[in-house]
Amino acid sequence: MGKEIPTRSEDYSSWYNELVKKADLAEHSDVRGCMVIKPYGYSIWEKMQQALDKMFKDTGHVNAYFPLFVPKSMFEAEEKNAEGFAKECAIVTHYRLKSDPKNPGKLIVDPDAKLEEELVVRPTSEAIIWSTYKKWIQSYRDLPILVNQWANVVRWEMRTRLFLRTAEFLWQEGHTAHATSKEAVDETVQMLNVYAEFAERFMAMPVIKGRKSEGERFPGAVDTYCIEAMMQDGKALQAGTSHFLGQNFANAFDVKFATKEGKLDHVWGTSWGVSTRLMGALIMAHSDDDGLVLPPKLAPIHVVIVPIFRNEEELSKLTVEVDKMAKSLRDAGYTVKFDNRDTQKPGFKFAEWELKGVPVRLAIGPRDLENGTVEVARRDTKTKEVMKLSDVATAIPKLLDDIQENIYKKALSFRESMITRVDTYDAFKQVLDEKTGFVLAHWDGTPETEAAIKEETKATIRCIPLDAPEEAGKCIYSGKPSSRRVLFARAY
Amino acid sequence: MGKEIPTRSEDYSSWYNELVKKADLAEHSDVRGCMVIKPYGYSIWEKMQQALDKMFKDTGHVNAYFPLFVPKSMFEAEEKNAEGFAKECAIVTHYRLKSDPKNPGKLIVDPDAKLEEELVVRPTSEAIIWSTYKKWIQSYRDLPILVNQWANVVRWEMRTRLFLRTAEFLWQEGHTAHATSKEAVDETVQMLNVYAEFAERFMAMPVIKGRKSEGERFPGAVDTYCIEAMMQDGKALQAGTSHFLGQNFANAFDVKFATKEGKLDHVWGTSWGVSTRLMGALIMAHSDDDGLVLPPKLAPIHVVIVPIFRNEEELSKLTVEVDKMAKSLRDAGYTVKFDNRDTQKPGFKFAEWELKGVPVRLAIGPRDLENGTVEVARRDTKTKEVMKLSDVATAIPKLLDDIQENIYKKALSFRESMITRVDTYDAFKQVLDEKTGFVLAHWDGTPETEAAIKEETKATIRCIPLDAPEEAGKCIYSGKPSSRRVLFARAY
Repeated sequence: MGKEIPTRSEDYSSWYNELVKKADLAEHSDVRGCMVIKPYGYSIWEKMQQALDKMFKDTGHVNAYFPLFVPKSMFEAEEKNAEGFAKECAIVTHYRLKSDPKNPGKLIVDPDAKLEEELVVRPTSEAIIWSTYKKWIQSYRDLPILVNQWANVVRWEMRTRLFLRTAEFLWQEGHTAHATSKEAVDETVQMLNVYAEFAERFMAMPVIKGRKSEGERFPGAVDTYCIEAMMQDGKALQAGTSHFLGQNFANAFDVKFATKEGKLDHVWGTSWGVSTRLMGALIMAHSDDDGLVLPPKLAPIHVVIVPIFRNEEELSKLTVEVDKMAKSLRDAGYTVKFDNRDTQKPGFKFAEWELKGVPVRLAIGPRDLENGTVEVARRDTKTKEVMKLSDVATAIPKLLDDIQENIYKKALSFRESMITRVDTYDAFKQVLDEKTGFVLAHWDGTPETEAAIKEETKATIRCIPLDAPEEAGKCIYSGKPSSRRVLFARAY
Repeated sequence: MGKEIPTRSEDYSSWYNELVKKADLAEHSDVRGCMVIKPYGYSIWEKMQQALDKMFKDTGHVNAYFPLFVPKSMFEAEEKNAEGFAKECAIVTHYRLKSDPKNPGKLIVDPDAKLEEELVVRPTSEAIIWSTYKKWIQSYRDLPILVNQWANVVRWEMRTRLFLRTAEFLWQEGHTAHATSKEAVDETVQMLNVYAEFAERFMAMPVIKGRKSEGERFPGAVDTYCIEAMMQDGKALQAGTSHFLGQNFANAFDVKFATKEGKLDHVWGTSWGVSTRLMGALIMAHSDDDGLVLPPKLAPIHVVIVPIFRNEEELSKLTVEVDKMAKSLRDAGYTVKFDNRDTQKPGFKFAEWELKGVPVRLAIGPRDLENGTVEVARRDTKTKEVMKLSDVATAIPKLLDDIQENIYKKALSFRESMITRVDTYDAFKQVLDEKTGFVLAHWDGTPETEAAIKEETKATIRCIPLDAPEEAGKCIYSGKPSSRRVLFARAY
């Protein structure tokens, strides 16, 4: 294929890295571990944001903004949260640079501008937000608080990959406060369902909803729910998490409220988030050796029109017809790109828009004009058909819906084919080594077994699926009794 | 007035500070100089973002995202930019905390996790963006680059005020790259006009467009354009800036391109930004002693409906009628709040929604229901009228347009009354001391005179207005010749 991207079967990892760069989605910056999200990539993220933001608001949430920095002492307040994040954070210790007396034109950190207390660049905002909620909450009348924040966060990752794992990334983090445990648990599950619906309806990516084992829980949470997706290389990807925090952060930050009955109680909390990691999931779930395959609902450009012409005159005749087509589609809310560059040949343009995952390509030349037709190519199936010009306005919207559905079904069918049930450790290891994918197996419920399996196979418990039926069995590792299968996989 | 906010004439500064907090716009956080933008305040900012983002996209710009951190050496590359911002920045020196061996449960900075090169939390992103543009630009075909970023930035301000001056703030920063000087200057002026149009059409805030004197220029710019607004206390506020960077950053980061003619030339640049400071401007431009006055185009709630009832039965009858009204307005795109709380009296609710600046309040009681009427109160003029229920759907949208226009006209008329022309330094000082506002006066064009006037009067040159006619005169300070008047004021 063009632009020097290896195929998936040649080298899946390089295929991904090169595709992200060649399709103009993102690139590494000169800052260790931080990426630049390029305009084309960012426009996909904006579409994700818009869809999610609407879903959050439709479920009663509002946006707000909290500080980037968390004072060290505040960070320490919730012990597990601090332990979980302190090892990989950016720490601000000074607030001024000054000219280097020994080296004109160079700057050095001004030792006189040392902060009294170090500031942690937020790796997640529970600490700063719960210290604020303490001021907002006195009575049950102040509850619930249903707040979301769109923000950047920093975790000092040692091994980074574009979108999948970067030191700085963009995300949203919901932080809610409730009067009862039940209300908080309901919120946690509601937001898990919002994420699952978003993944399936917009990203066309099927997900399995479940709960994390204790070992994989968010530091500071009582319970972590997640959605897990299957990538084309058989590895799992956690696409979103929703945490029931119990009263942990309310205890840590002394957030109490007067109940209806006039008692004082600690507030119940949740937090939930998805990040630019979803961009990585989107790419790996659908794309092929020719480039991106974008579901129409998240595609920055829905339709690209490529004119086939030999001279200015032909182009100008084609342009009249293209303008009409483009207008009818734009009026219906679609984004249309007319690629009338005279510096590139049609074949080059076809490859470029395939690389960029535009769902529908229309090609039209002088003969089409005579016949009143246009060639329609769909990116997902790579099939072509000839269509009457007069049908474009009604047929293309239907085609886009069909592409959205087809991409989902294809991913679902692949995902289903990648779930294997095993009853022995040998079979478990064989599946991981030969077929990969999700493995449903019995586990004795202990962190020790979980850790041993991870150590020996690199597979982790992705989740305990919410829809897993009760089923008596024996742990594949210890042979101890188990009451339901859990979902294992090697994961991103 | 309620909620313990001083009047503007009693104490303008406290009026502002208290209003921001009492109207639930923002509050100080426990992190020095950083604010929490509360949901009501953030929803106004979101409206600003949406309007601006559309204007940017309509003028051909796309969004992208660049790293939060700027390596120190990269920051040094453009000397003036570094000088201008190095004195007030947050510096990351370490990437890990660890348990304090002497103090269980406490964390200390891990001395083994010192960065080889310190990272500056971006105070502005020219350095990181131009170091990226170097990779994006080879030929004239790669130009122009018209990119905007919505982001947080940090400047270590010593004296902070909510929205007006905070260590961390939210903004957008456009960074464009062009093949010619003319194109870059045109872009600079275009974006200035976009800002002026936004301020006037959405914020209902008249602004004066002009160029900064050399002393007030953005560090690293060849020319800085700005819009200046007049606050109710007679102080000016810079509401947006647009910089022509010449080839300064292209020189600093070695960004060259092959011209059409096959030569190599440095790229021409611009940058432009507005920030959450606009929230402060919006508040101070229009609000009164009873609270916020929001222009309908940026109001999170357009219409609040307060039912007047003595019992459940009356409320339920009113609700039937209110639901109809609310639906007709919502269908027309307005946000309507039905304040049916039974824990608060109407008078309390009236004061609360006045404080929050909701443009239109409808009050309806049992007698209104009999008469088929509703009481309509507008926030800007504090006038009331009785309207037929059947007129609400058509009259309220018109009323909201009228309020938007009236708020603008009132601010314009005030601003016009606050521009004084003076020809002597004594008159200049008298205006600043007695009347305040903008002062149009002749200046000899030297930084020395500018600095002396600032030192003696605290007034700065806000701008050299773009529409200032040529006019021979003498500098009010030095008596030297001047060819046009410039705009002075004390400023935020």
